[in-house]
Amino acid sequence: MFELHPRLTADTLPITRLEACGVYLMNDKRYPWLVLVPRIEDTTELHRLSEEDYYSVQKEVRQVSTAVDTLFKPKKMNIGALGNLVPQLHIHIIARFENDETWPGPVWGVGKSLPYSQNEIDKLANDLQNLLINI
Amino acid sequence: MFELHPRLTADTLPITRLEACGVYLMNDKRYPWLVLVPRIEDTTELHRLSEEDYYSVQKEVRQVSTAVDTLFKPKKMNIGALGNLVPQLHIHIIARFENDETWPGPVWGVGKSLPYSQNEIDKLANDLQNLLINI
Repeated sequence: MFELHPRLTADTLPITRLEACGVYLMNDKRYPWLVLVPRIEDTTELHRLSEEDYYSVQKEVRQVSTAVDTLFKPKKMNIGALGNLVPQLHIHIIARFENDETWPGPVWGVGKSLPYSQNEIDKLANDLQNLLINI
Repeated sequence: MFELHPRLTADTLPITRLEACGVYLMNDKRYPWLVLVPRIEDTTELHRLSEEDYYSVQKEVRQVSTAVDTLFKPKKMNIGALGNLVPQLHIHIIARFENDETWPGPVWGVGKSLPYSQNEIDKLANDLQNLLINI
């Protein structure tokens, strides 16, 4: 049975479920930061997915990147599949701005996350869900 | 005309040319680290590529990841498209090990790169070219 890694459960909030991946919001309002988690067991590396699964996941990376770009109009999107700490395959999709805390460096492992309020989460979830339906 | 960004020219060595991307070796032997650069002008974001180009590039990300994984058998592959400093679209494909300099953190912007010798470059280029022909 597919289960989200405990670290992802602790750090993120569920936004929606696409065909291949669950979409989660990193609970850190320093950056608009989504995480895609393919619902495929025991997978740690993108390139080891079957060809079909690989392209399904990459389709959703494109879809979520487009939604985040549209909503936040960042200076740059950062896409990353690292997984050195959390082995469950997950892909980061992060909107970056020249005035954000770690620009131009990568965001991972730097500083302390800043949780959203419930109102902020509800609004963001709603905006993202509405955008993702139409992309 | 397509031109490699001067920073990429300075930091990498050309390995081979695939259908959509040039494949370059980061001249830093702390990590087996390749960079894919789509030969498409004025492109900064993966998700803004045409559908056809997007899947061509992602196909080559899979191909190069498989080659690097096969050759180096790392603990984890790290894949990233950041571009906060070098706007030209490029995708990092990095083999990570538990005893590497920055594990488990990301590699970007940490420490000083350690250039290869010409012999090391020749061997690596040869090994990668041979693997990529067969994947």
